[in-house]
Amino acid sequence: MTTNSLVEQIKIKDSFLCIGLDVDLNRIPKHLLSEEDPIFSFNKAIIDATHHLAVAYKPNTAFYEAYGLKGWRSLEKTIQYLNQYYPDIFTIADAKRGDIGNTSAMYAKAFFEDLGFDSVTVAPYMGKDSVEPFLAFTEKHTILLALTSNEGAFDFQTQRIDGKEMYKTVLETSKGWKNAQNLMYVVGATKAEFLGDIRKIIPNNFLLVPGVGVQGGSLAEVCTYGMNENVGLLINSSRGIIYASNRTDFAEAAARESQKLQTEMKAILHAR
Amino acid sequence: MTTNSLVEQIKIKDSFLCIGLDVDLNRIPKHLLSEEDPIFSFNKAIIDATHHLAVAYKPNTAFYEAYGLKGWRSLEKTIQYLNQYYPDIFTIADAKRGDIGNTSAMYAKAFFEDLGFDSVTVAPYMGKDSVEPFLAFTEKHTILLALTSNEGAFDFQTQRIDGKEMYKTVLETSKGWKNAQNLMYVVGATKAEFLGDIRKIIPNNFLLVPGVGVQGGSLAEVCTYGMNENVGLLINSSRGIIYASNRTDFAEAAARESQKLQTEMKAILHAR
Repeated sequence: MTTNSLVEQIKIKDSFLCIGLDVDLNRIPKHLLSEEDPIFSFNKAIIDATHHLAVAYKPNTAFYEAYGLKGWRSLEKTIQYLNQYYPDIFTIADAKRGDIGNTSAMYAKAFFEDLGFDSVTVAPYMGKDSVEPFLAFTEKHTILLALTSNEGAFDFQTQRIDGKEMYKTVLETSKGWKNAQNLMYVVGATKAEFLGDIRKIIPNNFLLVPGVGVQGGSLAEVCTYGMNENVGLLINSSRGIIYASNRTDFAEAAARESQKLQTEMKAILHAR
Repeated sequence: MTTNSLVEQIKIKDSFLCIGLDVDLNRIPKHLLSEEDPIFSFNKAIIDATHHLAVAYKPNTAFYEAYGLKGWRSLEKTIQYLNQYYPDIFTIADAKRGDIGNTSAMYAKAFFEDLGFDSVTVAPYMGKDSVEPFLAFTEKHTILLALTSNEGAFDFQTQRIDGKEMYKTVLETSKGWKNAQNLMYVVGATKAEFLGDIRKIIPNNFLLVPGVGVQGGSLAEVCTYGMNENVGLLINSSRGIIYASNRTDFAEAAARESQKLQTEMKAILHAR
């Protein structure tokens, strides 16, 4: 999916919501556990109930790998379902990969070709030649970690290199990489006050913003500092939506929570 | 496997060789492609032919994920085979994972519990709370990226934070994390001249050293600067060993290449 198509979908749906599919068998409704593939059944119900309120879904690969082969199969079925029934949805493999060139090329093949995601999250620590194999897929997006939502972000990301925070060095350096226009960046909602500075460096790229909801970030603040003329934001909520209820009404509850965020987003979009 | 057991194995085998199982279907012998599981057949033959010369094997997860469900099944069979038939081998999932705490906990479950690896490689960018869920497995080892073997290492890892290179900050900071004695570190063989400084910061931890062979690093130099009283090194070679021949003699060729490295290692160990 191109950036233009994503912007178009945001306008059509009055939403820039991304729903994180971080599915933990210990937290989903008990009645699903007797299904053949509880994780996929859960995802399918959540997607069917919320697809009109969200522009993107983001399965987090850790939650699938933790269940081995069965989990990988659930991931495969989830992306296939999204691609088949909701082709206008932007799909994100939240995988945080990155390795030497020939290895990153295999990860890119895994997520872009084999599974068919529109985008994948990538860690920047290993530098340019670890990221460019993802960017070589010119029809896809590569979402680079910049400033993450967790406390550990202060361990290295905000340390200063020649007076400038590491995450800013990542932003500036990555702008020079081949096909950098296909980069998006992860910036945590819990770090909204940093977004003004970030937008000075990368005014045009989309930001994937986790941390609204359970982690405590504010949607309004993120929009104030992070929105650009193309909106330029995908706001992710995972646990706050998908675990809104752990009973048989879980999908309706997820839709209610999504609706709350979409209503807030719509108001922000129309107030611009 | 404990660090002491690993050191014991190094002494028994006169080897600190790690063989990287980065299996690309385009590079393995053609006659294997008609097997039910060509990747596992390849790995099994390589392991059977080289296990007396190596103390560790390191499947690189990218090369398995690239083949989807089938690939994950090959990975599962490979680690099961190693654990069942060669329990004295130290196993490394080269996965370069790392995410917020609840997600890293799922990755740790995937590699340590579900698959049963002894260790996993982890990227440091997201800081302490992204690594400690791995370290919480006190019977396992967490191998943190410090200074990698690729050119991109110079993009961020060698940038100076308050006058000190980023990778040194990673080494020093991580020493304070819970169960830090279970940390190992990735340091590329192509950066052997940095090993003296690195050993000043982490004299005791094991280093996983890729980059000997195809990438051009020198075994002798790595040992001169990086070895400690417990040896403290796992030298990895992947392509130089597993693709030594692409004909029916591939396993024997892999053994020959492994033998060359083991002979060099034995000489170094006995010269100490």
